Amino acid sequence: MIIRISEIEIDSNYLEQYMSILKEESKASVELEPGVISIYPMYQKESPTQIRILEIYANKEAYEQHLKTPHFLKYKTITLKMVKSLRLVDMETIDSQTMPKIFQKLTAK
Amino acid sequence: MIIRISEIEIDSNYLEQYMSILKEESKASVELEPGVISIYPMYQKESPTQIRILEIYANKEAYEQHLKTPHFLKYKTITLKMVKSLRLVDMETIDSQTMPKIFQKLTAK
Repeated sequence: MIIRISEIEIDSNYLEQYMSILKEESKASVELEPGVISIYPMYQKESPTQIRILEIYANKEAYEQHLKTPHFLKYKTITLKMVKSLRLVDMETIDSQTMPKIFQKLTAK
Repeated sequence: MIIRISEIEIDSNYLEQYMSILKEESKASVELEPGVISIYPMYQKESPTQIRILEIYANKEAYEQHLKTPHFLKYKTITLKMVKSLRLVDMETIDSQTMPKIFQKLTAK
């Protein structure tokens, strides 16, 4: 699995527009791509232009395929001018065994 | 729901010990506390002393109860000297509707 937290800062003039496009893109990715396990977008309550996305891909191939999809390319092209900074931070999970339990609980809700 | 990313820096002398205690704490919280939806601990691949935890609580009461549990108090007491910095960043999700789909996919694995 590939786990990443993307740290993105958005130009405040475009924030609403950006969030709407990101929402569309994350929804399409999770629905249409079996290898995209999570694209979970959040923003900081105290600094809403600070976006964080928890991304989980099944493997490298799934990630590379994702980069070629129409929904990702559309998102990337439209949001290019809205992004002030972008940092892709590769992560490792400390406890992979707890993850299934977390998701079971969420699904039960 | 309360969503948070905790940003923690650990003294490198204690890293292995810290990860083991955090793993134990997150496991106990998710297993024993219905209101703790996620305590998902990660570290940055390029700077393993940089810990990030995605925390999701059902509500404020669940969070306050969590702070009183023996496993959290044990974690907090033991790790106090290991933590160089701690920032609790409150988050909002951009797309709550995508979340159930993400978790369905994970559960199916």
